[in-house]
Amino acid sequence: MNVPANLAEKLTTFTERFSPRTVAVYNDNDIMVAKLEGPYHWHKHDDTDDFFLVLRGTLDIELRDRTIRLNPGEVFVVPKGVEHRPVAHGEVHILLIEPTGTPNSGDKATAAPRIVA
Amino acid sequence: MNVPANLAEKLTTFTERFSPRTVAVYNDNDIMVAKLEGPYHWHKHDDTDDFFLVLRGTLDIELRDRTIRLNPGEVFVVPKGVEHRPVAHGEVHILLIEPTGTPNSGDKATAAPRIVA
Repeated sequence: MNVPANLAEKLTTFTERFSPRTVAVYNDNDIMVAKLEGPYHWHKHDDTDDFFLVLRGTLDIELRDRTIRLNPGEVFVVPKGVEHRPVAHGEVHILLIEPTGTPNSGDKATAAPRIVA
Repeated sequence: MNVPANLAEKLTTFTERFSPRTVAVYNDNDIMVAKLEGPYHWHKHDDTDDFFLVLRGTLDIELRDRTIRLNPGEVFVVPKGVEHRPVAHGEVHILLIEPTGTPNSGDKATAAPRIVA
């Protein structure tokens, strides 16, 4: 991983939605890119905040009491323990950061495998 | 901080070089934007990796044995303990992540104060 990662280039290497790819590692966190489309499911992470940076498209992060709308170049951190549902309007590309080993669905049984791009 | 941050907008709120501004907090890390211009000095962080994402311009991260060139949309993580010198070609905008309280110069005596944008 000790090389630079071009995010756009990494995003050309896969088409799967909601399947993050690790592009770098920072202090036991995975720096990942992902393609989203449509709604994900409601979930939360009890042990970690959830970092989103939108690279392309428009992403709503629904919280139980409000919706955060993110356009390219916008960042939002969902605090640990807070239920949220990402809803992607069309195809959306994001950079996300989570501690290595965090299940993306909030549940190890349903989590996507962690894949290095 | 529990609101979205538009990185370009945050970058319009200051002009100082090498003076990172915190735009969000993730698990005791500061998510920051900074403007760089010209060379910084050689330094290292013994306790943390150093995450760079270039948003605008061209940044060289000189290591003792090679130089990493980063253009917009490119990420590099300098591993902890590795000496490096950022050199910005003209005005460069970056997103960086460091544990809250990390001195940007690697030395508390010369570090820029941490400022919330």
